[in-house]
Amino acid sequence: MEKLRVFRLYVAFLVVCFQYCAADITFIAERFPLQGNRELSDVPWPMPTEWSRDNVTFTLSPTSLKFAPNLPECDVIHGAITRYRRLMSVNKETDPPAEVDIEGVNVIVENTTCEKYPYLDMDESYTISTGPSSISLTSQSVWGALRGLETLSQLLYEENGQVRIRNWTITDNPRFSHRGFLIDTSRHYLPLSIIKKHLDAMTWSKMNVLHWHIVDAQSFPYVSHAFPELSEKGAYSPRHVYTPEAVAEVIEYARLRGIRVVPEFDTPGHAHSWGKAKPDLLTPCWSDGKPYTAEYGQHTDRENFDPSRETTFQFLEEFMNDVASVFPDQFLHAGMDEAHYMWKEAIIWQDPLDNGVVVSNSTLIEVWKNKRNIRDCTNTSVDNFNEFALRAAKGGNRLIISSCWYLNYLCYGEDWRRFYKCDPTGFTVKREEMDQVVGGEACLWAEFVDGTNFLQRSWPRAAAVAERLWSPSHVTDADTAAFRLDAHRCRLLRRGIPAQPVLPGYCGDYDYGLEPEAPEGSGDEQTCPTGKAMQTETSSTMLLLSLIFTLAATSSA
Amino acid sequence: MEKLRVFRLYVAFLVVCFQYCAADITFIAERFPLQGNRELSDVPWPMPTEWSRDNVTFTLSPTSLKFAPNLPECDVIHGAITRYRRLMSVNKETDPPAEVDIEGVNVIVENTTCEKYPYLDMDESYTISTGPSSISLTSQSVWGALRGLETLSQLLYEENGQVRIRNWTITDNPRFSHRGFLIDTSRHYLPLSIIKKHLDAMTWSKMNVLHWHIVDAQSFPYVSHAFPELSEKGAYSPRHVYTPEAVAEVIEYARLRGIRVVPEFDTPGHAHSWGKAKPDLLTPCWSDGKPYTAEYGQHTDRENFDPSRETTFQFLEEFMNDVASVFPDQFLHAGMDEAHYMWKEAIIWQDPLDNGVVVSNSTLIEVWKNKRNIRDCTNTSVDNFNEFALRAAKGGNRLIISSCWYLNYLCYGEDWRRFYKCDPTGFTVKREEMDQVVGGEACLWAEFVDGTNFLQRSWPRAAAVAERLWSPSHVTDADTAAFRLDAHRCRLLRRGIPAQPVLPGYCGDYDYGLEPEAPEGSGDEQTCPTGKAMQTETSSTMLLLSLIFTLAATSSA
Repeated sequence: MEKLRVFRLYVAFLVVCFQYCAADITFIAERFPLQGNRELSDVPWPMPTEWSRDNVTFTLSPTSLKFAPNLPECDVIHGAITRYRRLMSVNKETDPPAEVDIEGVNVIVENTTCEKYPYLDMDESYTISTGPSSISLTSQSVWGALRGLETLSQLLYEENGQVRIRNWTITDNPRFSHRGFLIDTSRHYLPLSIIKKHLDAMTWSKMNVLHWHIVDAQSFPYVSHAFPELSEKGAYSPRHVYTPEAVAEVIEYARLRGIRVVPEFDTPGHAHSWGKAKPDLLTPCWSDGKPYTAEYGQHTDRENFDPSRETTFQFLEEFMNDVASVFPDQFLHAGMDEAHYMWKEAIIWQDPLDNGVVVSNSTLIEVWKNKRNIRDCTNTSVDNFNEFALRAAKGGNRLIISSCWYLNYLCYGEDWRRFYKCDPTGFTVKREEMDQVVGGEACLWAEFVDGTNFLQRSWPRAAAVAERLWSPSHVTDADTAAFRLDAHRCRLLRRGIPAQPVLPGYCGDYDYGLEPEAPEGSGDEQTCPTGKAMQTETSSTMLLLSLIFTLAATSSA
Repeated sequence: MEKLRVFRLYVAFLVVCFQYCAADITFIAERFPLQGNRELSDVPWPMPTEWSRDNVTFTLSPTSLKFAPNLPECDVIHGAITRYRRLMSVNKETDPPAEVDIEGVNVIVENTTCEKYPYLDMDESYTISTGPSSISLTSQSVWGALRGLETLSQLLYEENGQVRIRNWTITDNPRFSHRGFLIDTSRHYLPLSIIKKHLDAMTWSKMNVLHWHIVDAQSFPYVSHAFPELSEKGAYSPRHVYTPEAVAEVIEYARLRGIRVVPEFDTPGHAHSWGKAKPDLLTPCWSDGKPYTAEYGQHTDRENFDPSRETTFQFLEEFMNDVASVFPDQFLHAGMDEAHYMWKEAIIWQDPLDNGVVVSNSTLIEVWKNKRNIRDCTNTSVDNFNEFALRAAKGGNRLIISSCWYLNYLCYGEDWRRFYKCDPTGFTVKREEMDQVVGGEACLWAEFVDGTNFLQRSWPRAAAVAERLWSPSHVTDADTAAFRLDAHRCRLLRRGIPAQPVLPGYCGDYDYGLEPEAPEGSGDEQTCPTGKAMQTETSSTMLLLSLIFTLAATSSA
């Protein structure tokens, strides 16, 4: 009987939710019908802190919806309204109706400062209430307004060519302030266009820190003002670089979406690529009393900065001062070293702590170690980093957890469930340790990732991490989350991100590369839409066939 | 010293091979320099049976190269020459030189029949010899000519803006006749544009069978002439279908590339989606004396064809006769059943054999079972299907091996090595068993695969399978193959396939989504090139920045 009920809900869902969240995951095999509550599919991702809705619905027209912000001149607000108006609009919306219930959205920011850059501990709370004649979005800061607009955009749905919204009340704020994603642009170069799409997907999942592991042993794509020779010699090629202008473009794109850009210049290890231009920075290995004789497997020649030379520190200070003038965030990720040089504040990996080094109170420690055998996907436990986290917590520093969220370690199947299972405070024993955790990061190290597969591998798997970092700690039911994650995945597809499937099923009209529907007009609008490059290759024959079939299907329906 | 030698070769390689195979994988971490022989990077993938080359090189101009086929009217030959002329041409080729060594390619097919469709046991052998004034390509059949043209296209390289070829002698033929790839269009729909790109990648890797698992329990996208209601009710949506015209387009596209299309209509299990239109085809489950009471986990309601009704067999005969009129191949893959209905010849999965069913001599058995725990990637052995294969071999039927080549089962890292390690005759004890093996198939079941990630997940991993099915049995050194696979992956990228990385590194100018180089002219050719959709999103600002940087880099070089 329960099954019948779920099935009825499912049919109801299909009818109600066609256009916006036209997602439909299905059983993995006939033997395993899906568990969980499909009725919650329309609740936004990540799940808000408090929400309620009833069956009252209101009509609205995204194209003529009037946004009334109290900070219309603030670029963060202005940009967001422009973006969300476009996202909320549906290609297929029939002629805007003469009468709608909801005519506008009031966007009220209580603290009327137009803050320029997002920061750790910024206020991202907001409230939404709908209808009967307008929608009210209230936040403390401009950052909360961004989060609220994203939520609002997820509430719309289409029914019979008419856009609607249910009667919602939402009060929301993030559980953690630091909700990051590490990208690695050294093992492979990531094109700027893909980094921007990724920033889009992050903001649509309410993540707020791009941890940019920009250089490493393999290549040095960062173009430094002060030391351009580092990338001239250390980048894969002159085209595999991030110019100062490109970096500024990423920072600006992220800022407008409430995302911090925390650069990482990993030192003193992983520094091979620095040595292409500056060989004296690195220390040779000695073996049998001879230099340049690395025992591969144990150490490598010219892998580490040379701490015996004063010039190493002079160079680093100059380099980092230059970096500080480029990246506005108050934090730099200083890799694994002791952060000798001047910086506003620093994040470091846990390793120095593990070796007994004392670090400053204001340093954030990123916990990444894990005892799990990365090739044994039969092990789905998430407590195998507890001892490392506890050790890192000892000095009282604030912590970022990434041990359980290494997206590069693939497992067959629904491996997002493993990420979803992890509570970043799960390791804690005492209340104070819990309070030390400021958030976490999904990490996609790029040994096997580049522009071809970066977005696919990141999404929607990273969204599982995003929900655990935003939503209340009791939001843990993966079976029910699966339906919402599927809807979110289809939403990402609709918005141009080639997010990979969660389970068998489809995304209505938004499946990637789906042949275009027969155009209503002459079909002469030959455009190249975002994320739908395949469509441009469709031959005119196919268009014609598609047209014929659509007509046939329509006439027989 | 060995390391120094490898390093020198590596530098030499970079200088010689820039344009065509500008691939450069690099160490996975500083601690692990790559093993293997990088010098063989320029040997085609899959490795030819016999080959030699020396350091003599010849110049040629792909754009003015004269192809002289002895079957110019044969559509297979004509189409191939058109395609390969385009593939061999390089955007960047400077003005064709006034004088070249090689002016033409003689394409001689000994058996002058213009065969229409490829088939099991077709002759794919060919020979190539280069220079001094022309290239000679000789084959027994048109299919051999296709394989030879592919090899030839992989021999060209660029040096200082001049296209060259080394002095090669190649005598080649496949080790196995059936070199397949299974696609599954039921768990997720695959757009036609992606199926075609996949056929391209297959022919560039010398695979020759598309095993099209077209329907399954989850959806029924195949539009049947005789029973259109099957897809009307069973497809995910009216747009998630393969019309008769689309199917014909796939078959024709494959035919011209020497690829057979073997459709699979899996029966009697996995048939849930058939029941959407024809509920009486399927048998209800009984439990406690009541129908429609499946015990999920053990069996499912309406999963299997109902063998107790004569109408089931009448329907299947009509349906399959209709299918036979659509697919020209002599084989149908009949899934797991006993192949009651009439067909030219059939391939089936091994299961009926396992249950003691006697099958006809002409039936091919596909061995898919494996004892490996798919979630334990620490187990890299490839002998865990031996007992299943030996059992399937008992009746003397010819065999297709896929047990060790399930591409859907992901493992972290270089998991192509696991596929490369598998010899499809590795299980055999007797000489006769070895002779029964006609080939194998890479299988990408699509529970977690759709248009967003199909090509990335298939390539270049399937190329590892392709080499084991084409090249002599002694070609097994994965360390050395890694460099060639990397070059092949970059070749696939250059030709528009978003093949994923093999290791850290880059593909010269062909990395996916790389911002375009500054145009030489006015930059007004705003096109949307194959597989490079990202480029079209690059803002004019970026183009300008790219231009500035390129100029800066050039002037400082």
